[in-house]
Amino acid sequence: MPKVAVLPGDGIGQEIVPEAIRVLQAVLTDSSLRLEFKEYPVGGAAIDRAGRALPAETLAACQEADAVLLGAVGGPKWDTLPAPERPETAALLGLRKALGLYANIRPVRMLPALADASALKREVVQNTDLVVLRELTGGLYFGEKGRKQNPPAAYDLMIYTEEEVERIVRLAFETARLRRKKLCSVDKANVLETSRFWREVTLRVAAAYPEVELTHMYVDNAAMQLVRDPEQFDVLVTENMFGDILTDLASMLSGSIGMMASASLNGKKGLYEPAHGSAPDIAGKNLANPLATILSGALMLRYSFAREKEAQAIEQAVSKVLDAGYRTGDLAKPGDKVLGTKEMGDAVLAAL
Amino acid sequence: MPKVAVLPGDGIGQEIVPEAIRVLQAVLTDSSLRLEFKEYPVGGAAIDRAGRALPAETLAACQEADAVLLGAVGGPKWDTLPAPERPETAALLGLRKALGLYANIRPVRMLPALADASALKREVVQNTDLVVLRELTGGLYFGEKGRKQNPPAAYDLMIYTEEEVERIVRLAFETARLRRKKLCSVDKANVLETSRFWREVTLRVAAAYPEVELTHMYVDNAAMQLVRDPEQFDVLVTENMFGDILTDLASMLSGSIGMMASASLNGKKGLYEPAHGSAPDIAGKNLANPLATILSGALMLRYSFAREKEAQAIEQAVSKVLDAGYRTGDLAKPGDKVLGTKEMGDAVLAAL
Ligand SMILES: CC(C)[C@H](C(=O)O)[C@@H](O)C(=O)O
Ligand SMILES: CC(C)[C@H](C(=O)O)[C@@H](O)C(=O)O
Repeated sequence: MPKVAVLPGDGIGQEIVPEAIRVLQAVLTDSSLRLEFKEYPVGGAAIDRAGRALPAETLAACQEADAVLLGAVGGPKWDTLPAPERPETAALLGLRKALGLYANIRPVRMLPALADASALKREVVQNTDLVVLRELTGGLYFGEKGRKQNPPAAYDLMIYTEEEVERIVRLAFETARLRRKKLCSVDKANVLETSRFWREVTLRVAAAYPEVELTHMYVDNAAMQLVRDPEQFDVLVTENMFGDILTDLASMLSGSIGMMASASLNGKKGLYEPAHGSAPDIAGKNLANPLATILSGALMLRYSFAREKEAQAIEQAVSKVLDAGYRTGDLAKPGDKVLGTKEMGDAVLAAL
Repeated sequence: MPKVAVLPGDGIGQEIVPEAIRVLQAVLTDSSLRLEFKEYPVGGAAIDRAGRALPAETLAACQEADAVLLGAVGGPKWDTLPAPERPETAALLGLRKALGLYANIRPVRMLPALADASALKREVVQNTDLVVLRELTGGLYFGEKGRKQNPPAAYDLMIYTEEEVERIVRLAFETARLRRKKLCSVDKANVLETSRFWREVTLRVAAAYPEVELTHMYVDNAAMQLVRDPEQFDVLVTENMFGDILTDLASMLSGSIGMMASASLNGKKGLYEPAHGSAPDIAGKNLANPLATILSGALMLRYSFAREKEAQAIEQAVSKVLDAGYRTGDLAKPGDKVLGTKEMGDAVLAAL
């Protein structure tokens, strides 16, 4: 039986992950796939219990599992720790690096029911349907970093090897080929050498995908275009730091970051998690939106277990619940039926 | 008589700069300040004429002048050049470095008349009034860059000295003190060593400004918050690359990048330019929006010549013209009175 390592983590992670598991189990009832879910400590909770945000036992379980389902990590309690030891950095960056999860996929679709929850005008976002592919184990995040003296200074190295660029760009072309066949590679080639290198590699890979239309866009312009006219995009691919900024920005196109699912892949295994954080302010109150985690479960079925039908069943159930006017607090407008975390899970189950 | 070096540059630069000069001359008619405007080649035009995007004569004139007024540079004709020789890089980065223009100031105000031109909902942007201070001569832009072999790779160094951080952060506190006394410093301190250093320096500078409320925000969240709720911000300060992305994004909050003025300062001298590019597609057709350049002229009066009254007169004239329903093509909605570049200049002159 395939194994899923479950890492609820901190804050609302503890509330949203169980809802995703309930939905996964329900959608698989009539299928031949049975998943074994087993829970492991991670993040601040793991620091408190085991002294480390990513205990060796947890990492080993993730390495052994077929997929990882993660909630969220971090909170004010651990913010006084030195940055590299904090839950977000130690656990998330640690997992990405140790598992070699080089490709982060975040789909952004405006569900018609949520068009009015967005900060953007309905006519601007209503047909948004794009995917951002972010390189996740290279660049400034993992380059050498440190301090200098005389004069006092600090530095981070942005560095990319050919192989690092090639594998993410190839995946982006594969993704675009199965969609509307448009790929926009985002860089800052007018200034950065890594970006010029990125373009060269991208152009080389492009030769194998003549059916995909490739464009290049500077990152400053891409941030602007995502707000001005998101419907122009199909698949975007970019390096780690730019992807961090652009995916958070793009989450606004789907109404709330509480809707954004995320898959981090290495070609064999996947880690699935909502794009949002642990929201300590609303933790433990049954107020959190579990939909990004539930939708991350759908991505798990799609990318780790090749169950497209069941993945779509979850996505359709989520749309149906929203169409019926049900909302969690982050999405609610006057007149909406506001549900708690558990009740939203119930609603998705009922809609399956 | 104070000297202004005028660098119209390429594309629409040739059309928008004359409008800004007309407005500056008109607003100064009754004042004791007389400015001497003298034109110099820059950008692609300078490459064609002198073989270099930033000819020595132009740079010397800028160094000698009291202020620089720049249009825009670049165009498809020069895009085949190696990146470091292209007009944008050679001229803009060259000027910033040679003149030591470390502080880029881009004010973002939603003018009531333009609330409906924005991609964002009126209720989200209508009270937006913020300033982004971007560090302009450090970080990834000017750090060491290059290629490696075995394996093939490329790199850019993000590096900041204490002095570089301190002077821009100090200016940000000074700016906040004269406004609503709120400063948000944007970084990625959970991942980058340069950001942790930036925070330390910022906290040290903050001690001298107890009346300013300082907050820190991660850059991914800042990109999201600028779209979700821009009214929460007063002054933002950030490093070069983050500032490049966030200012382009923030331009969407004022309806169009055609509205965004920009001042680049070094403590003594300033370079003023619209935040947009040379727009080759509409160049030479009297279609460009001259307002960002005209508003950059207002910033020149404010920051280089301490003429607050005249600066405000220009800003009010621009508001008045927009309130009256006049628009250039980039801002026009059905029913608006669409003007050409020159006619928009005339309208601002008439409203002074
Ligand atoms: C928490 C942080 C280290 C992380 C990142 O920057 O990658 C987060 O913002 C994300 O996007 O997953
Ligand atoms: C043209 C380019 C080099 C420049 C930059 O990245 O700084 C531009 O985007 C800007 O913001 O002034």
